[in-house]
Amino acid sequence: MSDADDAGHRRAGRPLETVLTRPRITAAALRLIGATGYESFTMSGLARSLGVAPSALYNHAASKQVVLQWLQDHVMTMVDVAGFGAEPWDTALRRWAWSYRDIFATHVPLISIMAVLPVTGAPQTLRMYETVAAGLASARVPTAQIVPSIVALESFIFGSAFDVAAPADIFETGALAESSPIFSAAVRQGEQIQGKARADVAFEFGLEALVDRIGRLRRP
Amino acid sequence: MSDADDAGHRRAGRPLETVLTRPRITAAALRLIGATGYESFTMSGLARSLGVAPSALYNHAASKQVVLQWLQDHVMTMVDVAGFGAEPWDTALRRWAWSYRDIFATHVPLISIMAVLPVTGAPQTLRMYETVAAGLASARVPTAQIVPSIVALESFIFGSAFDVAAPADIFETGALAESSPIFSAAVRQGEQIQGKARADVAFEFGLEALVDRIGRLRRP
Repeated sequence: MSDADDAGHRRAGRPLETVLTRPRITAAALRLIGATGYESFTMSGLARSLGVAPSALYNHAASKQVVLQWLQDHVMTMVDVAGFGAEPWDTALRRWAWSYRDIFATHVPLISIMAVLPVTGAPQTLRMYETVAAGLASARVPTAQIVPSIVALESFIFGSAFDVAAPADIFETGALAESSPIFSAAVRQGEQIQGKARADVAFEFGLEALVDRIGRLRRP
Repeated sequence: MSDADDAGHRRAGRPLETVLTRPRITAAALRLIGATGYESFTMSGLARSLGVAPSALYNHAASKQVVLQWLQDHVMTMVDVAGFGAEPWDTALRRWAWSYRDIFATHVPLISIMAVLPVTGAPQTLRMYETVAAGLASARVPTAQIVPSIVALESFIFGSAFDVAAPADIFETGALAESSPIFSAAVRQGEQIQGKARADVAFEFGLEALVDRIGRLRRP
Protein backbone atom coordinates (compact mmCIF):
# COMPACT_ATOMS: atom_id res chain seq x y z
CA MET A 1 0.00 0.00 0.00
CA SER A 2 1.40 3.41 -0.94
CA ASP A 3 1.41 6.40 1.40
CA ALA A 4 -1.27 7.97 -0.80
CA ASP A 5 -3.57 4.97 -0.33
CA ASP A 6 -2.80 5.12 3.32
CA ALA A 7 -3.82 8.78 3.56
CA GLY A 8 -6.98 7.90 1.62
CA HIS A 9 -7.89 5.31 4.22
CA ARG A 10 -7.34 7.82 7.01
CA ARG A 11 -9.45 10.48 5.34
CA ALA A 12 -12.22 7.95 4.94
CA GLY A 13 -12.16 7.54 8.71
CA ARG A 14 -11.45 3.79 8.66
CA PRO A 15 -10.02 2.38 11.87
CA LEU A 16 -6.23 2.27 12.01
CA GLU A 17 -6.03 -1.50 11.93
CA THR A 18 -7.38 -1.68 8.38
CA VAL A 19 -4.15 0.03 7.22
CA LEU A 20 -1.98 -2.71 8.72
CA THR A 21 -0.39 -3.97 5.53
CA ARG A 22 2.53 -6.29 4.90
CA PRO A 23 4.90 -3.36 4.07
CA ARG A 24 3.90 -1.40 7.19
CA ILE A 25 4.21 -4.38 9.50
CA THR A 26 7.54 -5.33 7.93
CA ALA A 27 8.92 -1.80 8.27
CA ALA A 28 7.87 -1.64 11.92
CA ALA A 29 9.46 -5.04 12.60
CA LEU A 30 12.71 -3.89 10.99
CA ARG A 31 12.77 -0.72 13.10
CA LEU A 32 11.99 -2.59 16.30
CA ILE A 33 14.63 -5.26 15.69
CA GLY A 34 17.15 -2.56 14.73
CA ALA A 35 16.50 -0.90 18.10
CA THR A 36 16.24 -3.87 20.44
CA GLY A 37 17.47 -6.94 18.57
CA TYR A 38 15.95 -10.29 17.59
CA GLU A 39 16.15 -11.84 21.06
CA SER A 40 13.47 -9.61 22.54
CA PHE A 41 11.32 -9.36 19.41
CA THR A 42 7.71 -10.37 20.14
CA MET A 43 4.35 -9.97 18.41
CA SER A 44 3.00 -7.98 21.37
CA GLY A 45 5.99 -5.62 21.21
CA LEU A 46 5.43 -5.24 17.47
CA ALA A 47 1.71 -4.52 18.00
CA ARG A 48 2.62 -1.87 20.59
CA SER A 49 5.07 -0.22 18.19
CA LEU A 50 2.29 -0.11 15.56
CA GLY A 51 -0.14 1.35 18.07
CA VAL A 52 -2.61 -1.53 17.71
CA ALA A 53 -3.86 -4.40 19.84
CA PRO A 54 -2.07 -7.75 19.38
CA SER A 55 -5.36 -9.22 18.08
CA ALA A 56 -5.41 -6.61 15.29
CA LEU A 57 -1.84 -7.52 14.32
CA TYR A 58 -2.69 -11.24 14.30
CA ASN A 59 -5.55 -10.46 11.89
CA HIS A 60 -2.92 -9.44 9.35
CA ALA A 61 0.08 -11.61 10.22
CA ALA A 62 -0.80 -15.08 11.49
CA SER A 63 2.40 -15.59 13.51
CA LYS A 64 5.83 -14.22 14.38
CA GLN A 65 7.22 -16.69 11.84
CA VAL A 66 5.16 -15.01 9.10
CA VAL A 67 6.48 -11.56 10.09
CA LEU A 68 10.04 -12.89 10.03
CA GLN A 69 9.44 -14.34 6.55
CA TRP A 70 8.21 -10.93 5.35
CA LEU A 71 11.22 -9.32 6.98
CA GLN A 72 13.59 -11.78 5.33
CA ASP A 73 12.15 -11.00 1.92
CA HIS A 74 12.37 -7.26 2.61
CA VAL A 75 15.99 -7.51 3.77
CA MET A 76 16.83 -9.02 0.37
CA THR A 77 16.02 -5.69 -1.29
CA MET A 78 19.02 -4.22 0.57
CA VAL A 79 21.44 -6.62 -1.12
CA ASP A 80 23.45 -4.79 -3.79
CA VAL A 81 22.69 -6.18 -7.27
CA ALA A 82 23.48 -2.92 -9.10
CA GLY A 83 26.67 -4.33 -10.59
CA PHE A 84 24.87 -6.89 -12.76
CA GLY A 85 24.55 -5.62 -16.32
CA ALA A 86 26.70 -2.59 -15.48
CA GLU A 87 30.07 -4.13 -14.50
CA PRO A 88 32.04 -7.23 -15.54
CA TRP A 89 30.20 -10.35 -14.30
CA ASP A 90 32.81 -11.21 -11.68
CA THR A 91 32.99 -7.67 -10.26
CA ALA A 92 29.18 -7.66 -9.99
CA LEU A 93 29.20 -11.09 -8.33
CA ARG A 94 31.79 -10.05 -5.73
CA ARG A 95 29.88 -6.83 -4.97
CA TRP A 96 26.64 -8.81 -4.53
CA ALA A 97 28.28 -11.48 -2.35
CA TRP A 98 30.01 -9.03 0.03
CA SER A 99 26.88 -6.95 0.52
CA TYR A 100 24.74 -10.09 0.97
CA ARG A 101 27.12 -11.35 3.69
CA ASP A 102 27.29 -7.98 5.43
CA ILE A 103 23.51 -7.59 5.55
CA PHE A 104 22.82 -11.09 6.83
CA ALA A 105 25.60 -10.73 9.41
CA THR A 106 23.31 -8.16 11.07
CA HIS A 107 20.24 -10.39 10.54
CA VAL A 108 21.65 -13.81 11.46
CA PRO A 109 18.31 -15.12 12.84
CA LEU A 110 16.81 -14.73 9.36
CA ILE A 111 19.28 -17.19 7.83
CA SER A 112 17.52 -20.33 9.07
CA ILE A 113 14.22 -18.95 7.72
CA MET A 114 15.67 -17.88 4.38
CA ALA A 115 17.47 -21.19 3.85
CA VAL A 116 14.25 -23.22 3.76
CA LEU A 117 11.59 -20.75 2.53
CA PRO A 118 10.23 -21.50 -0.98
CA VAL A 119 10.77 -18.57 -3.36
CA THR A 120 7.04 -18.38 -4.12
CA GLY A 121 6.59 -16.86 -0.65
CA ALA A 122 9.44 -14.39 -1.16
CA PRO A 123 8.98 -12.29 -4.32
CA GLN A 124 11.88 -9.89 -3.60
CA THR A 125 14.21 -12.83 -3.05
CA LEU A 126 13.12 -14.27 -6.38
CA ARG A 127 13.79 -10.88 -8.03
CA MET A 128 17.32 -11.04 -6.68
CA TYR A 129 17.80 -14.58 -8.00
CA GLU A 130 16.54 -13.47 -11.41
CA THR A 131 19.08 -10.62 -11.52
CA VAL A 132 21.98 -12.86 -10.46
CA ALA A 133 20.88 -15.62 -12.88
CA ALA A 134 20.70 -13.06 -15.72
CA GLY A 135 24.20 -11.86 -14.82
CA LEU A 136 25.58 -15.40 -14.94
CA ALA A 137 23.70 -16.19 -18.17
CA SER A 138 25.16 -13.05 -19.84
CA ALA A 139 28.59 -14.26 -18.72
CA ARG A 140 27.85 -17.48 -20.70
CA VAL A 141 27.65 -19.73 -17.64
CA PRO A 142 25.71 -22.80 -18.93
CA THR A 143 22.05 -22.66 -17.87
CA ALA A 144 22.18 -25.95 -15.96
CA GLN A 145 25.11 -24.67 -13.87
CA ILE A 146 23.45 -21.44 -12.76
CA VAL A 147 21.44 -22.84 -9.82
CA PRO A 148 24.32 -24.92 -8.39
CA SER A 149 26.55 -21.83 -8.66
CA ILE A 150 24.06 -19.60 -6.84
CA VAL A 151 23.33 -22.22 -4.17
CA ALA A 152 27.04 -22.79 -3.49
CA LEU A 153 27.63 -19.03 -3.22
CA GLU A 154 24.63 -18.57 -0.92
CA SER A 155 25.60 -21.46 1.33
CA PHE A 156 29.04 -19.93 1.69
CA ILE A 157 27.54 -16.49 2.30
CA PHE A 158 25.15 -17.75 5.01
CA GLY A 159 27.89 -19.63 6.84
CA SER A 160 30.18 -16.62 6.57
CA ALA A 161 27.49 -14.32 7.99
CA PHE A 162 27.52 -16.45 11.16
CA ASP A 163 31.30 -16.17 11.24
CA VAL A 164 31.20 -12.35 11.25
CA ALA A 165 29.29 -12.55 14.54
CA ALA A 166 31.90 -14.85 16.14
CA PRO A 167 34.00 -13.44 19.00
CA ALA A 168 37.51 -12.33 18.01
CA ASP A 169 39.05 -14.96 20.27
CA ILE A 170 36.98 -17.90 19.01
CA PHE A 171 40.13 -19.79 17.96
CA GLU A 172 42.35 -18.82 20.92
CA THR A 173 43.31 -22.20 22.33
CA GLY A 174 44.50 -20.85 25.72
CA ALA A 175 45.19 -23.63 28.21
CA LEU A 176 44.51 -26.23 25.51
CA ALA A 177 47.34 -24.97 23.25
CA GLU A 178 49.68 -27.82 24.25
CA SER A 179 47.26 -30.45 22.99
CA SER A 180 46.71 -28.57 19.73
CA PRO A 181 50.19 -27.34 18.70
CA ILE A 182 49.66 -27.18 14.94
CA PHE A 183 46.31 -25.45 15.05
CA SER A 184 47.52 -23.03 17.74
CA ALA A 185 50.57 -22.09 15.64
CA ALA A 186 48.30 -21.60 12.62
CA VAL A 187 46.03 -19.29 14.62
CA ARG A 188 49.03 -17.22 15.80
CA GLN A 189 50.64 -16.98 12.35
CA GLY A 190 47.33 -16.15 10.71
CA GLU A 191 46.97 -13.23 13.12
CA GLN A 192 50.47 -11.92 12.62
CA ILE A 193 50.53 -11.93 8.85
CA GLN A 194 47.09 -10.67 7.98
CA GLY A 195 46.14 -7.13 8.81
CA LYS A 196 42.48 -7.73 8.00
CA ALA A 197 39.72 -9.14 10.18
CA ARG A 198 39.85 -12.93 10.39
CA ALA A 199 36.33 -13.33 9.01
CA ASP A 200 37.09 -11.09 6.01
CA VAL A 201 40.27 -12.99 5.13
CA ALA A 202 38.38 -16.30 5.12
CA PHE A 203 35.45 -14.82 3.19
CA GLU A 204 37.70 -13.38 0.51
CA PHE A 205 39.56 -16.67 0.19
CA GLY A 206 36.40 -18.73 -0.26
CA LEU A 207 34.63 -16.21 -2.47
CA GLU A 208 37.58 -15.98 -4.85
CA ALA A 209 37.66 -19.80 -5.03
CA LEU A 210 33.99 -19.87 -6.02
CA VAL A 211 34.20 -16.96 -8.48
CA ASP A 212 37.22 -18.59 -10.11
CA ARG A 213 35.36 -21.89 -10.44
CA ILE A 214 32.27 -20.23 -11.89
CA GLY A 215 34.51 -18.40 -14.37
CA ARG A 216 35.85 -21.72 -15.60
CA LEU A 217 32.29 -22.92 -16.36
CA ARG A 218 31.82 -20.19 -18.98
CA ARG A 219 31.30 -21.23 -22.58
CA PRO A 220 33.78 -19.69 -25.05
CA MET B 1 32.85 -40.85 33.91
CA SER B 2 33.14 -44.46 32.79
CA ASP B 3 30.46 -47.10 33.30
CA ALA B 4 32.70 -48.72 35.91
CA ASP B 5 32.89 -45.46 37.94
CA ASP B 6 29.18 -45.20 37.57
CA ALA B 7 28.58 -48.70 38.96
CA GLY B 8 30.93 -47.80 41.83
CA HIS B 9 28.82 -44.80 42.71
CA ARG B 10 25.68 -46.92 42.70
CA ARG B 11 27.23 -49.60 44.87
CA ALA B 12 28.31 -46.93 47.34
CA GLY B 13 24.66 -45.95 47.61
CA ARG B 14 25.18 -42.32 46.56
CA PRO B 15 22.09 -40.55 45.31
CA LEU B 16 21.58 -40.80 41.55
CA GLU B 17 22.07 -37.10 40.94
CA THR B 18 25.73 -37.22 41.95
CA VAL B 19 26.38 -39.31 38.81
CA LEU B 20 24.98 -36.62 36.54
CA THR B 21 28.10 -35.88 34.53
CA ARG B 22 28.66 -33.92 31.34
CA PRO B 23 28.96 -37.13 29.24
CA ARG B 24 25.76 -38.62 30.70
CA ILE B 25 23.73 -35.45 30.30
CA THR B 26 25.06 -35.01 26.76
CA ALA B 27 24.23 -38.60 25.79
CA ALA B 28 20.71 -38.25 27.20
CA ALA B 29 20.21 -34.98 25.30
CA LEU B 30 21.37 -36.61 22.06
CA ARG B 31 18.95 -39.53 22.56
CA LEU B 32 16.05 -37.24 23.41
CA ILE B 33 16.66 -34.92 20.46
CA GLY B 34 17.07 -37.94 18.17
CA ALA B 35 13.65 -39.16 19.29
CA THR B 36 11.64 -35.93 19.44
CA GLY B 37 13.69 -33.22 17.71
CA TYR B 38 15.13 -29.87 18.77
CA GLU B 39 11.82 -27.98 18.74
CA SER B 40 10.41 -29.77 21.76
CA PHE B 41 13.72 -30.15 23.64
CA THR B 42 13.46 -28.72 27.16
CA MET B 43 15.47 -28.97 30.37
CA SER B 44 12.48 -30.48 32.19
CA GLY B 45 12.10 -33.13 29.48
CA LEU B 46 15.82 -33.86 29.73
CA ALA B 47 15.61 -34.15 33.53
CA ARG B 48 12.68 -36.57 33.15
CA SER B 49 14.64 -38.72 30.69
CA LEU B 50 17.51 -38.84 33.21
CA GLY B 51 15.13 -39.76 36.01
CA VAL B 52 16.03 -36.72 38.11
CA ALA B 53 14.32 -33.53 39.23
CA PRO B 54 14.93 -30.43 37.07
CA SER B 55 16.71 -28.80 40.04
CA ALA B 56 19.22 -31.68 40.10
CA LEU B 57 19.90 -31.24 36.39
CA TYR B 58 20.39 -27.48 36.83
CA ASN B 59 22.98 -28.23 39.53
CA HIS B 60 25.13 -29.78 36.81
CA ALA B 61 24.17 -27.82 33.68
CA ALA B 62 23.36 -24.17 34.29
CA SER B 63 21.08 -23.77 31.26
CA LYS B 64 19.73 -25.34 28.09
CA GLN B 65 22.35 -23.32 26.21
CA VAL B 66 25.10 -25.08 28.18
CA VAL B 67 23.65 -28.50 27.33
CA LEU B 68 23.48 -27.55 23.65
CA GLN B 69 27.14 -26.44 23.79
CA TRP B 70 28.11 -29.82 25.27
CA LEU B 71 26.03 -31.53 22.61
CA GLN B 72 27.67 -29.50 19.83
CA ASP B 73 31.11 -30.51 21.04
CA HIS B 74 30.03 -34.15 21.29
CA VAL B 75 28.54 -34.14 17.79
CA MET B 76 31.97 -33.09 16.48
CA THR B 77 33.37 -36.49 17.50
CA MET B 78 31.07 -38.03 14.87
CA VAL B 79 32.73 -36.09 12.05
CA ASP B 80 35.00 -38.38 10.03
CA VAL B 81 38.65 -37.31 10.30
CA ALA B 82 40.06 -40.81 9.71
CA GLY B 83 41.36 -39.89 6.26
CA PHE B 84 43.94 -37.42 7.58
CA GLY B 85 47.37 -39.03 7.70
CA ALA B 86 46.02 -42.13 5.96
CA GLU B 87 44.88 -40.84 2.56
CA PRO B 88 46.00 -38.08 0.18
CA TRP B 89 45.28 -34.67 1.78
CA ASP B 90 42.49 -33.80 -0.67
CA THR B 91 40.73 -37.16 -0.32
CA ALA B 92 40.84 -36.77 3.47
CA LEU B 93 39.54 -33.21 3.23
CA ARG B 94 36.60 -34.21 1.01
CA ARG B 95 35.73 -37.13 3.32
CA TRP B 96 35.81 -34.81 6.35
CA ALA B 97 33.75 -32.09 4.64
CA TRP B 98 30.97 -34.41 3.40
CA SER B 99 30.60 -36.10 6.79
CA TYR B 100 30.68 -32.74 8.59
CA ARG B 101 27.86 -31.43 6.36
CA ASP B 102 25.79 -34.61 6.72
CA ILE B 103 26.03 -34.60 10.52
CA PHE B 104 25.16 -30.93 10.92
CA ALA B 105 22.30 -31.29 8.45
CA THR B 106 20.63 -33.42 11.14
CA HIS B 107 21.69 -30.98 13.89
CA VAL B 108 20.96 -27.63 12.22
CA PRO B 109 20.07 -25.84 15.50
CA LEU B 110 23.63 -26.47 16.71
CA ILE B 111 25.13 -24.44 13.87
CA SER B 112 24.40 -21.03 15.37
CA ILE B 113 25.94 -22.23 18.68
CA MET B 114 29.00 -23.78 17.04
CA ALA B 115 29.66 -20.76 14.85
CA VAL B 116 30.27 -18.43 17.80
CA LEU B 117 31.52 -20.75 20.60
CA PRO B 118 35.20 -20.26 21.54
CA VAL B 119 37.22 -23.47 21.12
CA THR B 120 38.33 -23.37 24.76
CA GLY B 121 34.78 -24.44 25.68
CA ALA B 122 34.77 -27.22 23.07
CA PRO B 123 37.73 -29.60 23.47
CA GLN B 124 36.49 -32.18 20.92
CA THR B 125 35.99 -29.44 18.37
CA LEU B 126 39.56 -28.28 18.98
CA ARG B 127 40.78 -31.86 18.53
CA MET B 128 39.10 -31.92 15.15
CA TYR B 129 40.70 -28.61 14.17
CA GLU B 130 44.09 -29.95 15.22
CA THR B 131 43.66 -33.03 13.00
CA VAL B 132 42.54 -30.98 9.99
CA ALA B 133 45.32 -28.41 10.55
CA ALA B 134 47.90 -31.22 10.76
CA GLY B 135 46.52 -32.66 7.51
CA LEU B 136 46.87 -29.31 5.74
CA ALA B 137 50.33 -28.68 7.23
CA SER B 138 51.53 -32.11 5.97
CA ALA B 139 50.20 -31.13 2.55
CA ARG B 140 52.54 -28.09 2.75
CA VAL B 141 49.75 -25.50 2.99
CA PRO B 142 51.52 -22.43 4.45
CA THR B 143 50.84 -22.09 8.19
CA ALA B 144 49.25 -18.64 7.89
CA GLN B 145 46.76 -19.97 5.31
CA ILE B 146 45.52 -22.88 7.40
CA VAL B 147 42.96 -20.99 9.50
CA PRO B 148 41.44 -19.06 6.57
CA SER B 149 41.17 -22.35 4.66
CA ILE B 150 39.41 -24.13 7.54
CA VAL B 151 37.09 -21.18 8.22
CA ALA B 152 36.11 -20.89 4.55
CA LEU B 153 35.41 -24.64 4.40
CA GLU B 154 33.39 -24.55 7.62
CA SER B 155 31.35 -21.54 6.55
CA PHE B 156 30.50 -23.36 3.34
CA ILE B 157 29.70 -26.57 5.26
CA PHE B 158 27.39 -24.76 7.73
CA GLY B 159 25.48 -22.98 4.98
CA SER B 160 25.22 -26.21 3.01
CA ALA B 161 23.88 -28.08 6.06
CA PHE B 162 20.93 -25.64 6.09
CA ASP B 163 20.43 -26.26 2.38
CA VAL B 164 20.07 -30.03 2.90
CA ALA B 165 17.02 -29.29 5.06
CA ALA B 166 15.40 -27.10 2.39
CA PRO B 167 12.22 -28.40 0.72
CA ALA B 168 12.73 -29.96 -2.72
CA ASP B 169 10.58 -27.25 -4.33
CA ILE B 170 12.34 -24.29 -2.71
CA PHE B 171 13.22 -22.82 -6.13
CA GLU B 172 9.98 -23.69 -7.95
CA THR B 173 8.82 -20.28 -9.15
CA GLY B 174 5.22 -21.36 -9.87
CA ALA B 175 2.94 -18.42 -10.63
CA LEU B 176 5.95 -16.08 -10.48
CA ALA B 177 7.77 -17.84 -13.35
CA GLU B 178 6.82 -15.16 -15.88
CA SER B 179 8.57 -12.43 -13.90
CA SER B 180 11.69 -14.60 -13.44
CA PRO B 181 12.22 -16.28 -16.84
CA ILE B 182 15.99 -16.78 -16.64
CA PHE B 183 16.06 -18.16 -13.12
CA SER B 184 13.02 -20.38 -13.83
CA ALA B 185 14.70 -21.84 -16.92
CA ALA B 186 17.88 -22.42 -14.90
CA VAL B 187 15.90 -24.28 -12.22
CA ARG B 188 14.22 -26.48 -14.87
CA GLN B 189 17.45 -27.26 -16.74
CA GLY B 190 19.32 -27.93 -13.52
CA GLU B 191 16.69 -30.52 -12.62
CA GLN B 192 16.70 -32.22 -16.01
CA ILE B 193 20.42 -32.63 -16.40
CA GLN B 194 21.52 -33.63 -12.93
CA GLY B 195 20.44 -36.97 -11.56
CA LYS B 196 21.67 -36.10 -8.07
CA ALA B 197 19.93 -34.17 -5.30
CA ARG B 198 20.09 -30.41 -5.82
CA ALA B 199 21.85 -29.82 -2.50
CA ASP B 200 24.53 -32.42 -3.27
CA VAL B 201 25.26 -30.96 -6.71
CA ALA B 202 25.79 -27.51 -5.20
CA PHE B 203 27.85 -28.88 -2.31
CA GLU B 204 30.14 -30.82 -4.63
CA PHE B 205 30.59 -27.79 -6.86
CA GLY B 206 31.56 -25.48 -3.99
CA LEU B 207 33.67 -28.04 -2.17
CA GLU B 208 35.70 -28.81 -5.28
CA ALA B 209 36.25 -25.07 -5.79
CA LEU B 210 37.62 -24.74 -2.25
CA VAL B 211 39.74 -27.91 -2.36
CA ASP B 212 41.21 -26.77 -5.68
CA ARG B 213 42.06 -23.35 -4.24
CA ILE B 214 43.65 -24.84 -1.12
CA GLY B 215 45.69 -27.15 -3.37
CA ARG B 216 47.10 -24.14 -5.16
CA LEU B 217 48.32 -22.67 -1.83
CA ARG B 218 50.70 -25.61 -1.30
CA ARG B 219 54.43 -24.93 -1.24
CA PRO B 220 56.43 -26.99 -3.75
